[in-house]
Amino acid sequence: MKSEVLAQVIRGETVESIHRGHLVVMDGDKNVVAAVGDPDTVTYFRSACKAFQALPFIAGGGADHFGFSEDEIALACASHSGEPMHTRVAQSMLSKAGFAESDLRCGTHLPFNEKETERILAAGERPTQLHNNCSGKHAAMLASAKYIGADPASYDSITHPVQQEILKTVAAFAEMPVDSIAIGVDGCAAPNFAMPLSNMAICFANLIAPQKAFDERIRQACISMISAMVKFPELIGGTERLDTILMTAAPGKIISKVGADGVWLCGVLPDDRYPRGLAIALKIEDGDDKRARPVVAVELLRELGVLPTDALTDISPMPIRNRRGDIVGKVNPQLRLNRR
Amino acid sequence: MKSEVLAQVIRGETVESIHRGHLVVMDGDKNVVAAVGDPDTVTYFRSACKAFQALPFIAGGGADHFGFSEDEIALACASHSGEPMHTRVAQSMLSKAGFAESDLRCGTHLPFNEKETERILAAGERPTQLHNNCSGKHAAMLASAKYIGADPASYDSITHPVQQEILKTVAAFAEMPVDSIAIGVDGCAAPNFAMPLSNMAICFANLIAPQKAFDERIRQACISMISAMVKFPELIGGTERLDTILMTAAPGKIISKVGADGVWLCGVLPDDRYPRGLAIALKIEDGDDKRARPVVAVELLRELGVLPTDALTDISPMPIRNRRGDIVGKVNPQLRLNRR
Repeated sequence: MKSEVLAQVIRGETVESIHRGHLVVMDGDKNVVAAVGDPDTVTYFRSACKAFQALPFIAGGGADHFGFSEDEIALACASHSGEPMHTRVAQSMLSKAGFAESDLRCGTHLPFNEKETERILAAGERPTQLHNNCSGKHAAMLASAKYIGADPASYDSITHPVQQEILKTVAAFAEMPVDSIAIGVDGCAAPNFAMPLSNMAICFANLIAPQKAFDERIRQACISMISAMVKFPELIGGTERLDTILMTAAPGKIISKVGADGVWLCGVLPDDRYPRGLAIALKIEDGDDKRARPVVAVELLRELGVLPTDALTDISPMPIRNRRGDIVGKVNPQLRLNRR
Repeated sequence: MKSEVLAQVIRGETVESIHRGHLVVMDGDKNVVAAVGDPDTVTYFRSACKAFQALPFIAGGGADHFGFSEDEIALACASHSGEPMHTRVAQSMLSKAGFAESDLRCGTHLPFNEKETERILAAGERPTQLHNNCSGKHAAMLASAKYIGADPASYDSITHPVQQEILKTVAAFAEMPVDSIAIGVDGCAAPNFAMPLSNMAICFANLIAPQKAFDERIRQACISMISAMVKFPELIGGTERLDTILMTAAPGKIISKVGADGVWLCGVLPDDRYPRGLAIALKIEDGDDKRARPVVAVELLRELGVLPTDALTDISPMPIRNRRGDIVGKVNPQLRLNRR
């Protein structure tokens, strides 16, 4: 089945552009509750898989060994904005494990946070690898290499024991054979994983309600990571970032994790309404992350009753402004949930 | 007919995202030569219509009256990068017509050119309206208001004589009744025009080979504008911008004009191969302008023989790099031209 229209960009009274995509919602027992488009579409997990990249390190005892605190565990699962609150935690993770910024292999980019970017440029500074949105993940990978006695210099290679352990973890949570997961290189140079969108949702279903099949240390690590993410939503994204906005709007109820190129995963934690929780996976087909993804994510959480119907109406529909700040259009969600 | 896939984003060996869209190629007599998707899709012309917004001013004698030079006529048709070579010309246009930067109503944004943005921020400056990519268009609209004796303070209102004259010009070139053109507000606060993609191509066909139906002043204005655009390709876009790259790669052969939200119009000037020229209109359905639009535009010009087959291979396919600069994927054009 093909992708379906998920959002319309409207200028004046006329549709100017459209965004298509796929989404799937399943419960903690992996029963599909609703879907749009084709949940079997294969794409990359991107940063939405960060919890599973941190998991073997935490479950294996590495985080405890180095005395990583809850905010540091949260940052390992984050795509942060490079604000001082983020770079400070990343630096602390490196220091605790005995590494320096130059040991990271994620590369640099200007912070996602505009104010911090403007501050850096105005000060005549350059961004460091700590500002890379993945620096927490990479700091945890470095620490993991040291903890298991592997070479820290090549921790980002797919053949490295740290990455092999991550691949096995991802495969276990996705309930797929390791060799049916396609490997690519992420924007931060770490290996990343392509699989059907529905298997990404299965990963999140297993994260929020880990099966008995997983051993006790893994189940405890899942609980620790969820607790850390829920406690520090501002570290998972940052100021004005989608994950932070959603987790702040539904405090203690969800874990939200974007991935580059229009990916969004969300775990709705078990409660009275959803006793086994919900796992949501969304892919905007064209990779949009600025207008269709936030608009659809908010509308979906409202339709599922996770957010009140009047929540985040400044995000969905999203106003389009001209350079003078006048509203001249909007991005409308267009969700036709196929409920099962 | 629906949109068709025009580009694939590939990471490693796996397709990660796709971009769909529509395109139409017609000759100067408006015979459709090739098409993909639905040429009757309605969307906004955006900045690709700038030549038609400048046309009544030039044809009416306003540009001559104020002594606008060829580079100033080129900037009136431009979506420039806010580099010093652009802001200087915009300032000169304002000065010649007796206006100041504060008379512009386009609003401000940081320059599209990254180096100039970094320079402005590092110097503790803020961008002015001259940096707005549409400042040349707005300077010409201001001058036009003064030339016809209309109020310069409201030149951007759709009811203003300047905009009404533009609307009539656009309708004439699109060969559509005025009242079948939907009006929206552009990012720069000027009115903009929604119409079928094929009518945008008709506009460009009429621009490069104006019919006898247009009076001599209009035909001369078309020739002047084309000559100015071809002479100053660096003013139409800027350093590393698509229009400039394409017009530089096919010097004297084409006029290229992007519009926001994935629009691209191109006029291939009459030559031995295409004696009546070609008019091309492209819309990336999702509004992408970073990867699908350049990749498709370059591939299309190669397929049409306007560019050599080995031209601009650094743009199409477009390499995808990680934050360390390694190539980890590519954006591939996927053109299945339906030739007629």
